Amino acid sequence: MSYGLIFESLKKNNLQNWLLYTKHDFLKQLSDNSLKKDCFLNYLKQDYLFLIQFSKAWSLAVLKSDNLDEMKISASTVNDLINFEMQLHIDLCDEYGISKKDLESTDERNENIAYTRYVLELGYSGDFLDLLSALAPCVLGYGEIGLNLKDFKPNNIMYQKWIETYASNEYQDVCKNVSQLIDNSFLIRLGNNYKDTYKWVQANKIFNKATLLEVDFWNMALK
Amino acid sequence: MSYGLIFESLKKNNLQNWLLYTKHDFLKQLSDNSLKKDCFLNYLKQDYLFLIQFSKAWSLAVLKSDNLDEMKISASTVNDLINFEMQLHIDLCDEYGISKKDLESTDERNENIAYTRYVLELGYSGDFLDLLSALAPCVLGYGEIGLNLKDFKPNNIMYQKWIETYASNEYQDVCKNVSQLIDNSFLIRLGNNYKDTYKWVQANKIFNKATLLEVDFWNMALK
Amino acid sequence: MSYGLIFESLKKNNLQNWLLYTKHDFLKQLSDNSLKKDCFLNYLKQDYLFLIQFSKAWSLAVLKSDNLDEMKISASTVNDLINFEMQLHIDLCDEYGISKKDLESTDERNENIAYTRYVLELGYSGDFLDLLSALAPCVLGYGEIGLNLKDFKPNNIMYQKWIETYASNEYQDVCKNVSQLIDNSFLIRLGNNYKDTYKWVQANKIFNKATLLEVDFWNMALK
Amino acid sequence: MSYGLIFESLKKNNLQNWLLYTKHDFLKQLSDNSLKKDCFLNYLKQDYLFLIQFSKAWSLAVLKSDNLDEMKISASTVNDLINFEMQLHIDLCDEYGISKKDLESTDERNENIAYTRYVLELGYSGDFLDLLSALAPCVLGYGEIGLNLKDFKPNNIMYQKWIETYASNEYQDVCKNVSQLIDNSFLIRLGNNYKDTYKWVQANKIFNKATLLEVDFWNMALK
Repeated sequence: MSYGLIFESLKKNNLQNWLLYTKHDFLKQLSDNSLKKDCFLNYLKQDYLFLIQFSKAWSLAVLKSDNLDEMKISASTVNDLINFEMQLHIDLCDEYGISKKDLESTDERNENIAYTRYVLELGYSGDFLDLLSALAPCVLGYGEIGLNLKDFKPNNIMYQKWIETYASNEYQDVCKNVSQLIDNSFLIRLGNNYKDTYKWVQANKIFNKATLLEVDFWNMALK
Repeated sequence: MSYGLIFESLKKNNLQNWLLYTKHDFLKQLSDNSLKKDCFLNYLKQDYLFLIQFSKAWSLAVLKSDNLDEMKISASTVNDLINFEMQLHIDLCDEYGISKKDLESTDERNENIAYTRYVLELGYSGDFLDLLSALAPCVLGYGEIGLNLKDFKPNNIMYQKWIETYASNEYQDVCKNVSQLIDNSFLIRLGNNYKDTYKWVQANKIFNKATLLEVDFWNMALK
Repeated sequence: MSYGLIFESLKKNNLQNWLLYTKHDFLKQLSDNSLKKDCFLNYLKQDYLFLIQFSKAWSLAVLKSDNLDEMKISASTVNDLINFEMQLHIDLCDEYGISKKDLESTDERNENIAYTRYVLELGYSGDFLDLLSALAPCVLGYGEIGLNLKDFKPNNIMYQKWIETYASNEYQDVCKNVSQLIDNSFLIRLGNNYKDTYKWVQANKIFNKATLLEVDFWNMALK
Repeated sequence: MSYGLIFESLKKNNLQNWLLYTKHDFLKQLSDNSLKKDCFLNYLKQDYLFLIQFSKAWSLAVLKSDNLDEMKISASTVNDLINFEMQLHIDLCDEYGISKKDLESTDERNENIAYTRYVLELGYSGDFLDLLSALAPCVLGYGEIGLNLKDFKPNNIMYQKWIETYASNEYQDVCKNVSQLIDNSFLIRLGNNYKDTYKWVQANKIFNKATLLEVDFWNMALK
């Protein structure tokens, strides 16, 4: 499995933090079924609030696109997130006894604010590449986590379902599309010598920071 | 036919300019088949560039939404515009001998820039109500024009199809959804006495200016 | 001392969190001289990064202004922050052995990111009142803290200077100008019955959240 | 006189339109005193509205800056425009019988909207280089025009003063600072081979379009 030239390179350059994120205790506990149920439910609530801001960040990708192809993928992603995934999330939570009202009245934790507002502000102040560098750790990190954990079958059906979602072909297809979008948009803008550019240094800083904010999101979930 | 409380009120307050827009010579000529073919083709090319910016403006509506319902309608609109209407537009133009390359290399006229950047900048600098007030003349104006012209059957099949598009049930449904979005978002934010508010004065100014920029778009198309 | 009608009302509505912020242990330790020097130096470094983002947030106030008076105060604030306060901060740090290079290479802590990006994103996505509600806790809170602590004379000259800065007439004048800006802009937009409006509910939520993010900033400084 | 490497290159690449702008009939008539007084007064009124939006665009430059030096120049420019130039403009207009109220109630012409909103929207959607490419024709074009016309002494004192303003050392210093900002920011971001980059193609497109929107601004003034 590879999520493209650019992602693999960003990941390699920031590998230590990447592993802190993708091999986090939260995931270990989830996969070996030792995760406390309350932690998971709190995570789900925060993740609902996260998804709202994340959809908004993808809307900025439409605005920062330079051509119709970039707009198409970004707009589909926004629409999938808002008109499908959010509903799935609401339904899933409902199954576990968290009503839509509960979700909406959940207090947004500071670690959640830090991550989502970092990405959104960067989407406003930065360009398409900056935004993609901030979105990549979430989209593709969850894809990688899904594949990492797909052979674990925790007893708790919630945990199992969570793993299956991100290991699923549907989600892996999303990852492939986003990887291709990232590769194309970097290469069009920066050329083959992208590693020698000012933007590449920035992209790495952003990717690294977003990864650390993901780590803190897991930390929050375990508190 | 009514497109809701708020729109009807905005329209009534700015009726003179509204009629300059919805009863413009371009439309008269289109409906009685006297419109020069070149004018129409140039309009189609500019309208392609318009749609790109207009989709971006609707993406800002996702960002400026205050609740999931507002996000859902805005995200659907973005997706419909980019992943369906744009393709229809490209296919239609292709039928008339305008290739996608032609469309993409079309030079954006100043009247087009004026209107689209006015709406977009307002979407960035303003709030959800400001943005909707700027979007309303286009979305709902075309709906009204479609209904106004639906009994005209110009010989030119291009003109007839254009009228049918905006008179169609599909497009009228879009108008109904957008009307409802406008009514709800104004009433939630401003209350029943919305006419006494600062925002209402602004909404009228914006609606009026956007209407005049639509008039100039028709003027451009006839040049 | 009063910082205006609107601020006093926002503060009263969120008093418990306001006191967590303005009576924080960091301030107690600073005023009784028990604060560890390293904590203070780390705070100064983070505060440098904070000021950069805070100046950017005030630049958004220029963009969200509705009239020339609002633009004038916002533009002056941006200019004061960037062309004077930043330099003072750099000089002060230099005195304490922190070079400009140190400042610029300081890693932005997550609590710092959370607060600054929350304000900035809100400045982009929200309107003038939203932005002012998020800026108020910082500007006016530091003013109040300065006055609260002005009779304490900690031995550490750095701490004493810090208190004097915010208790100074210059800083209190800034607070007065900002208070007036807040009062005027709320009353113009929402009218005298501002407490019955949708925007007032939002303003309180934002003010409260920004206050809690300030609390976390102090927490970070003590870590 | 040279306004730097980058500007001279952008100008050379778009020379035909640049001359349409800097050698426009409006300027010929102004320098030989044949310009109708009403045209000039209308120009002054539109220019007031222009300055408001132009200051807002420079505020975006603060937000899109990547380092403190860029922020400093941008913030000074915003402050100069809003707290000094606007006042000069208001005083000047007052001398010619146009009150501040007249200025504020002036209806913004579409050509004015096209130019200002193009720049602002690009400031929001684009990056620092995009924004500077859109701002350059105005700032540096007026500098060049000032120098071009400085030996003309039209009888009409208003016209003479206008020329003197832009030929003055003060204004030429602004031009030098902005030129340097442009050179530095392009070279830092794109390197010495900037002409081979994707961003350079975009910068030229933007510079060219902004120049044409300036031409249309003069056209409007002569109408």
